[in-house]
Amino acid sequence: MKKLPDKTVERLSQYRRTLLIALGSGKHHIFSHELAAMLHITSVQVRRDIMLIGYSGTLRQGYDVKELIEIIGKIIDSKDGQKVAVIGIGNLGRAIIGYFSGKRTKLSIVAGFDVNPDKIDRVYAGVWCYNLDRLAEIIQKENISIAVLTVPAADATQIADQLILAGIKGILNFTPRPLNVPSNVYLEEYDMITSLEKLAYFVKKV
Amino acid sequence: MKKLPDKTVERLSQYRRTLLIALGSGKHHIFSHELAAMLHITSVQVRRDIMLIGYSGTLRQGYDVKELIEIIGKIIDSKDGQKVAVIGIGNLGRAIIGYFSGKRTKLSIVAGFDVNPDKIDRVYAGVWCYNLDRLAEIIQKENISIAVLTVPAADATQIADQLILAGIKGILNFTPRPLNVPSNVYLEEYDMITSLEKLAYFVKKV
Repeated sequence: MKKLPDKTVERLSQYRRTLLIALGSGKHHIFSHELAAMLHITSVQVRRDIMLIGYSGTLRQGYDVKELIEIIGKIIDSKDGQKVAVIGIGNLGRAIIGYFSGKRTKLSIVAGFDVNPDKIDRVYAGVWCYNLDRLAEIIQKENISIAVLTVPAADATQIADQLILAGIKGILNFTPRPLNVPSNVYLEEYDMITSLEKLAYFVKKV
Repeated sequence: MKKLPDKTVERLSQYRRTLLIALGSGKHHIFSHELAAMLHITSVQVRRDIMLIGYSGTLRQGYDVKELIEIIGKIIDSKDGQKVAVIGIGNLGRAIIGYFSGKRTKLSIVAGFDVNPDKIDRVYAGVWCYNLDRLAEIIQKENISIAVLTVPAADATQIADQLILAGIKGILNFTPRPLNVPSNVYLEEYDMITSLEKLAYFVKKV
């Protein structure tokens, strides 16, 4: 199967999350317009995405929730799962680890890294925090492919370079420092201040 | 001036952040292609956005960094600043408060809220944590217009309804639960699992 577009993958992940919530509240069938309303998008968009992954519902009942969850999983998850490291065990790093612990997902956080001696060799929600100087060693030993970067902005560039050298293939950058990565590394960036500033702009003139 | 598009505001905020970094490293002029490269977008996009806010650089020197920072501020910031509350003082809530403290921004976090008695009436990086049952009272007294939601998913919908009743005009939702808000309230949603799942999808077949 060809690579799906960026935004489609994002929506598939959101569909699955929303379907899991629906299933949890006892809903076994769902219409495209219901899923669309929950996610503030159009039902045309929902139907197009789901057709793209080769699934279709029935006119009378809509999509089978369980089946659709499974099919999305087959498309976006890796069969054997993927391992994630969190670099920087401050409040944000700990929030991410806590958020993942106990979630049914094919992604598992298997290591944390920090430079603070008070944090090194401690366990956070089941995840061991290593000394940052063991970054390359642990990434290779554990076969970690994805890194979440929550270090101070000033350290972001240098640590990203180390991650790439160590063989990391995907970086989720939560620092406000934009990164440069080679074309075989996938980068996602999120900066909270941008989100808040955008919100503030639209709020100020309402 | 007419409302700018969503994505333009997002990029303006990113330009400003990048320009502040450039200024910090002693750079006083910058070309559109340099700014574009730092943010992984095209220089055509940069020039279009900056023309849209009525600014232009010179052919020889590019944009004046300080001037451009100021002009972006005039467009996206509110003159008198805006007040923000963080609902849920867990790791993520504390990360957001810490991230903002000491930043030069027109947005200020003026209150936190939680239900945990160990957190209530304590100060986190200069921000007072109130009992959640005082939500409406404090929002109105402090004239808070924006709320950052970092509560457990199961509480998200109910607390969002309370925020809207209390007069909040913008919500940044970090819970995995999609929200519904009336059309006079602006909503931004961010879910880390979606970002990570997207990353994982693109990484798995590289």
